Amino acid sequence: MMSKIAVIPGDGIGKEVAPEGAKLLEQLSSARGLGLELEFFDYGADRYLKDGTTLPPEQLEAFRRDYRAILFGAVGDPRVPDSRHAREILLALRFQLDLYVNLRPVRLLADRFSPLVGKGRKEIDGVFFRENTEGVYVDVGGNFKQGTADEIAITEDVNSRKGVERICRAALDWARKHGEKTVWMSDKSNAMRHAGGLWQRVWKELARDYPDLELRHMYVDVLAMQMVLRPELFRVVVTNNLFGDILTDLGAGISGGLGFSASANLNPGKIGLFEPVHGSAPDIVGTGKANPIATFLTCALLLEHLGHDAEARIVEKAVDLAVAENVLTPDVGGSRTTSEVSEFVRAQVARL
Amino acid sequence: MMSKIAVIPGDGIGKEVAPEGAKLLEQLSSARGLGLELEFFDYGADRYLKDGTTLPPEQLEAFRRDYRAILFGAVGDPRVPDSRHAREILLALRFQLDLYVNLRPVRLLADRFSPLVGKGRKEIDGVFFRENTEGVYVDVGGNFKQGTADEIAITEDVNSRKGVERICRAALDWARKHGEKTVWMSDKSNAMRHAGGLWQRVWKELARDYPDLELRHMYVDVLAMQMVLRPELFRVVVTNNLFGDILTDLGAGISGGLGFSASANLNPGKIGLFEPVHGSAPDIVGTGKANPIATFLTCALLLEHLGHDAEARIVEKAVDLAVAENVLTPDVGGSRTTSEVSEFVRAQVARL
Ligand SMILES: CC(C)[C@H](C(=O)O)[C@@H](O)C(=O)O
Ligand SMILES: CC(C)[C@H](C(=O)O)[C@@H](O)C(=O)O
Repeated sequence: MMSKIAVIPGDGIGKEVAPEGAKLLEQLSSARGLGLELEFFDYGADRYLKDGTTLPPEQLEAFRRDYRAILFGAVGDPRVPDSRHAREILLALRFQLDLYVNLRPVRLLADRFSPLVGKGRKEIDGVFFRENTEGVYVDVGGNFKQGTADEIAITEDVNSRKGVERICRAALDWARKHGEKTVWMSDKSNAMRHAGGLWQRVWKELARDYPDLELRHMYVDVLAMQMVLRPELFRVVVTNNLFGDILTDLGAGISGGLGFSASANLNPGKIGLFEPVHGSAPDIVGTGKANPIATFLTCALLLEHLGHDAEARIVEKAVDLAVAENVLTPDVGGSRTTSEVSEFVRAQVARL
Repeated sequence: MMSKIAVIPGDGIGKEVAPEGAKLLEQLSSARGLGLELEFFDYGADRYLKDGTTLPPEQLEAFRRDYRAILFGAVGDPRVPDSRHAREILLALRFQLDLYVNLRPVRLLADRFSPLVGKGRKEIDGVFFRENTEGVYVDVGGNFKQGTADEIAITEDVNSRKGVERICRAALDWARKHGEKTVWMSDKSNAMRHAGGLWQRVWKELARDYPDLELRHMYVDVLAMQMVLRPELFRVVVTNNLFGDILTDLGAGISGGLGFSASANLNPGKIGLFEPVHGSAPDIVGTGKANPIATFLTCALLLEHLGHDAEARIVEKAVDLAVAENVLTPDVGGSRTTSEVSEFVRAQVARL
C-alpha cells in the first residue's frame, strides 16, 4: 500500500530544508520498501503574493482524504507583514485537520550544545504537548474604534472542555506508554480565572483516571523560569496553545537553538503535519547555513506516525553520527553547509 | 515633609522578607532624615480566611490619597486554591491605582550566578517594561455550560490604544534617559491578529516620535528563546501584561533565580507599589532560607521613586558587598539565614 506524503516547503529556509527531508524519505522508502509517495506543493508567500492563494479548501479536503502526512518547511515572509498567509496555511492545516496535539520534544543531542551550566543530555530530555486547535489561536476578537485614540483590541482565549481534556489525555497516555511517572500541566489560573479554571478542573478530574501517574501543576511564568534552572524536572508537560508556543521555543533555546527542534501535529489515526520548530529565517536564505537536522528529526516523527519505527530510529542514529563527527552547520558550531550535512546524514542512513 | 509608606507583607515568605526591607527603610530614614513613616497592613491569606477581607475600598482610597509607596511581600497560599485573594489584593492594587508600568530589571549581580554558559554580568543587564493594567489580567471572560461536557471557557485579552501607547512610551522615555539606543517590543501578532495589530500599529507610529532610538520587534516565542541564547540583546524590552509576566520570570531564571529580582509598579507622580518578583514560597516558610536580597533591591527602587537616589545607590552597594563576601542564603550558593543576610546588609548600609 502506498502512503501519500505532501511536502510543503513554504517560505525562506523552508525551501532549503524541506527538500532535503523529502530526499531522505524517498531514499528510505525505496531502500526499505515503505511505499511513500511524495508530492510537492508551492503554498507560501510567493504563491500568495502572486495570485492570492493560501490554501484552497479542495486541497485541504484532498489532504484529509488521501494523504497520511505533510512535511512542512516554514512559513513567514517580511513581504506579508501581518502574516496572513501563515494563519491561512499553517494554522488552517492545524485547525481544519483538527490536529489537536502539537508534540514537541525538548531534547539535547549532546552535552556540548547546552547553553545551561551543568545541564547536559540527561537533564534536558522532555516532550511538550501543546494544545493545537484552540486558545488565542482561534482568531476570535476584534478592534473597536480603530484609528481613534480610544481603540480597544480584543483577542479571545477560547478553551473547550473537550479540547482541554483531549490534549491532557494525550500527554498522560504518552507518559504511561513511555514509562514516565510525572506529567506537568501549566496554566496561568491565578490570573486567568475563566480559562485557567477549566484547565484546573479537568486536571483534577483526570487524576482519578490516571492513579498510576503523578499529575502536577506549575504556573507558566514559574515553569519558564524553572526550564532554565531545573530542566530535568520537565519530562512531560502539557499546556495550552500560546504557552506551548512560548515554552517550546524556550525549549529549543535550552537544547541549543532551533536547529535541532522537531514537531508533530497529530490527531491519532488521521493525517499528521510535521514541521521543524524554526521559522523561515529570511536573513540566512541562500547562504547554505540553514540547519537541516531539525527537518530530519521531524522526518523521524513522521516515520513513527506511519508505523515505521525502525526507520525513525535509523534517522535518529544518522543524526547522532553527524553530531558525533561535528558534520554540522555554523549555528551549532559546525562549518558545513546545508547540503553537506544532508548528504552526510543520508550516507549514514544508507549504511545503517 | 513625611512620606507615608505602607508595608503589606502578605503571605508565606512575604512575612519574612518584607519586615527586613521595612527595617532597612527605617534605618535609612532616621540616619539620613528621609522622613519615611512606615505602617504595616495585614492583608493576605490569613486575614482573608479569617474574615473574608481582601482589600477594603476605603483602604485603597487612603493609599491613593495619603501614601507615596507600598512595600509588598508576596501573595499566594495553598489554602486559597483559586488565588482569589491574590487578584483582590495584588492585582487590585495594580489596577485600581492605575500603576501601568511594571518595571522589572533583569540583572545578574555576579558572573558566578549565571545559569547560562559564557553569559555574565555584562551580558545579562536589562530592564523589562510590563504593561500592568490590561491584557488577560482584566479578568473579563466567562465559563459557559460549566459542569457539562460542552463547557467553553473564555478569557479575553483586552488592550486599549491608550494603554499600549503609554507603556511603550514609558519604555522609550526610560531608554532615552538612560542612554540606551534600542528598545524591543514583543508580541504575538502573527497569531493574535487583533491585539497584536494594535501593538504593531502603535509601535510603528512611535518610531516617528523617537527618531533617535531604534524601535525593534521580536515575537514573544522567539524572544523567550533568545533570552537564553543572546540575553545581551535585551537591554530594554516592552511587552503586554501576560508576556511580561512570563518573560520576567524567565529573566529571573537567567539572573540566577528569583532571589535577586525586584520590581516597581508605577504611574509617574502617583503612589508606587514595590514587590520582589518571587512568590510566597510556602515550602520554605520558617526555615530561614528566604532570600531578602530581592526585597532590598525592591527597596532601592522604592527609594528612587521617592527621589532618594543617593540612598538607593547605598542599598545597591550594600547588596553588592553581601554578594562579594557571599553573605547569602542557600538558594544562591550561600549558607546564611534570612536574618543574617539582612543584618549584614543593614550593617553595610550603616557604614556607607
Ligand atoms: C508562525 C507561527 C504562527 C507559529 C505559531 O505560533 O504556532 C510558530 O511560532 C510555531 O510555533 O509553529
Ligand atoms: C501572583 C500573580 C497573579 C502575579 C502575576 O501574574 O502578575 C505574579 O506572578 C507576578 O508576576 O507578580
